[in-house]
Amino acid sequence: MRPEMPQFQPRDADYAARVRASFGLQQAMSLIGAEMAVVEPGYVEIHLPNKPEITQQHGFIHGGVVGMIADSAAGYAANTLTPADASVLTVEYKMNLVAPADGQRLVARGEVVRPGRTLIVTRADVYAIRDEQWTLCAIMQQTIMAMHGKKEREG
Amino acid sequence: MRPEMPQFQPRDADYAARVRASFGLQQAMSLIGAEMAVVEPGYVEIHLPNKPEITQQHGFIHGGVVGMIADSAAGYAANTLTPADASVLTVEYKMNLVAPADGQRLVARGEVVRPGRTLIVTRADVYAIRDEQWTLCAIMQQTIMAMHGKKEREG
Amino acid sequence: MRPEMPQFQPRDADYAARVRASFGLQQAMSLIGAEMAVVEPGYVEIHLPNKPEITQQHGFIHGGVVGMIADSAAGYAANTLTPADASVLTVEYKMNLVAPADGQRLVARGEVVRPGRTLIVTRADVYAIRDEQWTLCAIMQQTIMAMHGKKEREG
Amino acid sequence: MRPEMPQFQPRDADYAARVRASFGLQQAMSLIGAEMAVVEPGYVEIHLPNKPEITQQHGFIHGGVVGMIADSAAGYAANTLTPADASVLTVEYKMNLVAPADGQRLVARGEVVRPGRTLIVTRADVYAIRDEQWTLCAIMQQTIMAMHGKKEREG
Repeated sequence: MRPEMPQFQPRDADYAARVRASFGLQQAMSLIGAEMAVVEPGYVEIHLPNKPEITQQHGFIHGGVVGMIADSAAGYAANTLTPADASVLTVEYKMNLVAPADGQRLVARGEVVRPGRTLIVTRADVYAIRDEQWTLCAIMQQTIMAMHGKKEREG
Repeated sequence: MRPEMPQFQPRDADYAARVRASFGLQQAMSLIGAEMAVVEPGYVEIHLPNKPEITQQHGFIHGGVVGMIADSAAGYAANTLTPADASVLTVEYKMNLVAPADGQRLVARGEVVRPGRTLIVTRADVYAIRDEQWTLCAIMQQTIMAMHGKKEREG
Repeated sequence: MRPEMPQFQPRDADYAARVRASFGLQQAMSLIGAEMAVVEPGYVEIHLPNKPEITQQHGFIHGGVVGMIADSAAGYAANTLTPADASVLTVEYKMNLVAPADGQRLVARGEVVRPGRTLIVTRADVYAIRDEQWTLCAIMQQTIMAMHGKKEREG
Repeated sequence: MRPEMPQFQPRDADYAARVRASFGLQQAMSLIGAEMAVVEPGYVEIHLPNKPEITQQHGFIHGGVVGMIADSAAGYAANTLTPADASVLTVEYKMNLVAPADGQRLVARGEVVRPGRTLIVTRADVYAIRDEQWTLCAIMQQTIMAMHGKKEREG
């Protein structure tokens, strides 16, 4: 019998607004056209419409761009669970590209696997969607570090 | 006594032109402003000038962008060693972000560790350069697959 | 709406006997005392009772031993889906140790995420069980290569 | 021009004795027969003679055992640089198995890439040695966490 993954309880009631504000400051995300579509405790979705500017030499979405949204979805999933006065940074991630990112859009789903105080371990799956058919194109495993007492962009 | 890494012998005399042409087709690399600065057998350098469009919420170059140039440098390092009629794809990579990508430009150095016929294992280091001081900001380990008889963008 | 993971159809009716026979030949698995408890299409469980010989300096089961059973569970999960005349080898894996392996026994659950002809991508979770309480202690992501026409231990 | 890797200065004059004592407590290392052959600031070598008990189904040394000594060499390399009152634990590692571990003995060389106060990033290479010919059989990238004020096995 495998225990269910725990439901996560955010420590900051305003987690969604805080996470969305941080995402809004990432110019690299605007550059590729990524949107933060879903923000829940321990779970974030990034959506990315296809456009020629983000492709590689075969016309598919570039693997590095797939990595960007996977990293971002999982990192912000971790960020939903940190206190209001903490920021997060990516320690490392590992990604398998399992199919070409061939779709009208991509959906990256990041989720927390284990939320420690200092280190938060996450996973992400990325799907390519063509004519509403979903194909898994990448899976990621990631370590995030919480920096306590170090707000994002303290003014 | 540790043996030196072997010198690599390309199987395609035109490897540099072939690799540069493929890189030129990656619109995602133009989007971020990456340049292929060095192409040698088993070794490729990608340079990336900083600009606001590629930053994250703290003003450093986005970790996903660091991943893009590391993946690209190492993948093309592998591509220098494949035959003319083969293309390559990234199977997977793992990256540690060891310092903020805080510099006027980044240099990603990709190199082949072991060139198999089907799988090529590579490593990359990324440096952030500020006032000619180099700081290691990311290290990567990667697996590349060679697709034989499948040229890049066959017409 | 996230699509369910596909049910896997083995290409070799005798997959379970074949996989168990291969596991039986791994002396390293006997050395640590690991048992292959469950073998299903695309899914394998390895169980490992605790004993002093497999511990590290704090008395928990050694992280390297945790890696051995995670690697083995996921690799054999891949092996359930290959043809009878193919063998498998681990290309690479990445593992996060998320809690001490503190239990009377460990259970490693390996499953196939995407079965390609040449490369098979898998994941594994390892639980430490103490007094029937399960604690996730490691997660892994792995790439397996199928070697076609190359049976295990051909006589 | 690539800057040389920095020479590391240990913060604990007794680092070598401390690290060797910790290694001596790992029963799992005795079980497989691993020896700590070299201990320098930021660098550790583990040697492993071959024996039938540590093989897999093809008669080579088991990939999981290769992982154990790579993890250990790199983790203890990190441990040479921590203060006397700190212990270390493996956060995660990623390993590519690039050739069969086919030799009379293995040598794992672990080295620190970047020593942070909390997180230490390392790499390891493992060689299989047959008749004094060295073949690279695995490369690893790893994250280690230092637990300050938490000595190994405090009495």
